[in-house]
Amino acid sequence: MKIAVLGVGLIGGSIGLAARARLDAEVAGFDPDRELLDRAAELGAIDSAHDSVAAAIQDAELIFCAAPVMALPAIAREALDAAGEGCAVTDVGSVKRDVIAALGSDGRFVGGHPLAGAETSGVEGARADLFDGARWYLTPTSNTQGVLYDRVQRAIADIGARPQAIEAETHDRLMATISHLPHVLANVLVTQAATALSEESEHLPEVGPSFRDATRVAGANPAIWGDIFAGNREAVASEIDAAIARLSEAAELIRSGETDAVTAWHERAGDHRRELVETEIAGGPLHELRVRVPNRPGIVAEIALELGRAGVNIEDMALYPAADMTSGAISLYIAGNDEASRAESLVRELGHDVSRGE
Amino acid sequence: MKIAVLGVGLIGGSIGLAARARLDAEVAGFDPDRELLDRAAELGAIDSAHDSVAAAIQDAELIFCAAPVMALPAIAREALDAAGEGCAVTDVGSVKRDVIAALGSDGRFVGGHPLAGAETSGVEGARADLFDGARWYLTPTSNTQGVLYDRVQRAIADIGARPQAIEAETHDRLMATISHLPHVLANVLVTQAATALSEESEHLPEVGPSFRDATRVAGANPAIWGDIFAGNREAVASEIDAAIARLSEAAELIRSGETDAVTAWHERAGDHRRELVETEIAGGPLHELRVRVPNRPGIVAEIALELGRAGVNIEDMALYPAADMTSGAISLYIAGNDEASRAESLVRELGHDVSRGE
Repeated sequence: MKIAVLGVGLIGGSIGLAARARLDAEVAGFDPDRELLDRAAELGAIDSAHDSVAAAIQDAELIFCAAPVMALPAIAREALDAAGEGCAVTDVGSVKRDVIAALGSDGRFVGGHPLAGAETSGVEGARADLFDGARWYLTPTSNTQGVLYDRVQRAIADIGARPQAIEAETHDRLMATISHLPHVLANVLVTQAATALSEESEHLPEVGPSFRDATRVAGANPAIWGDIFAGNREAVASEIDAAIARLSEAAELIRSGETDAVTAWHERAGDHRRELVETEIAGGPLHELRVRVPNRPGIVAEIALELGRAGVNIEDMALYPAADMTSGAISLYIAGNDEASRAESLVRELGHDVSRGE
Repeated sequence: MKIAVLGVGLIGGSIGLAARARLDAEVAGFDPDRELLDRAAELGAIDSAHDSVAAAIQDAELIFCAAPVMALPAIAREALDAAGEGCAVTDVGSVKRDVIAALGSDGRFVGGHPLAGAETSGVEGARADLFDGARWYLTPTSNTQGVLYDRVQRAIADIGARPQAIEAETHDRLMATISHLPHVLANVLVTQAATALSEESEHLPEVGPSFRDATRVAGANPAIWGDIFAGNREAVASEIDAAIARLSEAAELIRSGETDAVTAWHERAGDHRRELVETEIAGGPLHELRVRVPNRPGIVAEIALELGRAGVNIEDMALYPAADMTSGAISLYIAGNDEASRAESLVRELGHDVSRGE
């Protein structure tokens, strides 16, 4: 099978590596950045480097467009124009509406979005196993040719991902809710806190763990996020509108001073989170263990090693140093009732205070 | 010095332990829950257990009211009524406006709020060193007697905390911004996501790390948080209003599709977060190291142990398991340029991919 990869960064490079290793495919590459293209060849991500889209897609049966979000419609258009009738073209953009509006009428195009690869960027981080077990959304339309859709989803499954078809609009809305809106809220929260502190001429010596967690992604990767917000602007703005409506209700409820109603609202949120987070964890419901520890080098190691020796996996972890940085708390998230109980005993035997998070 | 502690949970119990150990004080205790009171005596948190506020405060020079937020004004009122002219009365509530409105006209009352102790609850978790290095806000008014204020702040400093005077209203606004608003946003976000998924009849197999972090506190400790939202309702509602205004601006900006302006807005948020978070870290600017790892028991231990051996402290950590749970990324937050570079080399020598977070 001959495959073309247009754009050889982290995602394109990883597709190339995986396709060569697992599909035994011949991979032709194109990238407007010649240096990057040569590096991709050196790293074995592509078999051949080409100066143009047309040259790269020669005889290809499947074309992956892996350019930045804003450049995707143009490069995919160019690929479709140059490609033959029997060639499938797909992309990897994290927003799908615009590219489907532009190209969805062409039966050879299938929009795609792998949920992988945000951790590092650049072809240097490319790996053949990047997509192992990862959800890979595909957004076929009523025009999509069945045989070409099948070719795309088969290739994706064979390189280790889990393809799932979804409407482009639904995809964009869910991404707006689950990923884009949290980034917007984090941005608003840090800006508001910075403004409040400066207005009050106060210097809060420590922001709490809730603030740290809530704002961890504030301002992350501005180049990528500018494009995502612009590309998914309608869905993101509409999710912001919905959040505003919910916040207005929350403000009204809190202002009412009806403690029982406020508590019930708060409890429902806790239930929602458990539902959302637990669905992604195999092995049972997720338990939080709060451990009080001295804040010294090695303490995390000691606990993690003890659990590791006992075969207990830590699904998630958060550190909460105390104000003076000499002590603090660690939250360990453990899946499964039995596992959590074992972890609790093990940590207690190490001499630490442990309590269950609520 | 004779001290009375009214309410012997985590905070009251820790005040008792610290006052006995560090101020050589005689500590009298009262709690409406007799069992809890006896347990506090057993644990050495109080010297004597009393059946009434009046009995506990007999001859006391300093009274700590450590009841739940909603019960504080009443118990502090009772203490003031029964106490002599030369006795200082303070509280530990996380919201200050109501208690100051009720009692601020009495020159013997000083509002207080230690930023400590959220991790565990109950007298079983009480420790003499709970307040070591912790900020402890005090909210004197123009009526407060100087000598009594001085007695409170000296005792607080002597049990290890760092007292700081602040206007009650400013305190409540800053707590609303830094702590209460993040909880509201987390609640709204999970509810919105749960609604979106159910409306779209979709099951997102994995919520992203940004969603997990942003919603970690959703619905936490409903009993406590119902009281906090009710007690600080004006400030919280007004911070929600401000967040709504900022979100409206963000929605407008994003809807405009002006990528450069969106990117600039996003970058400013990143700057704000760095300023806010870095001020609390001694030892220089905070660096994020993203490490790709196999997701197996012991992997966190291996890395943390290596850094611990080399004396590099991990300020914060977050785990991001990949979709299939067989691999993932760890973010390590290290303070100081040199420390971060050392950590980077050490982790790389262990054979892991490392990149700097942006």
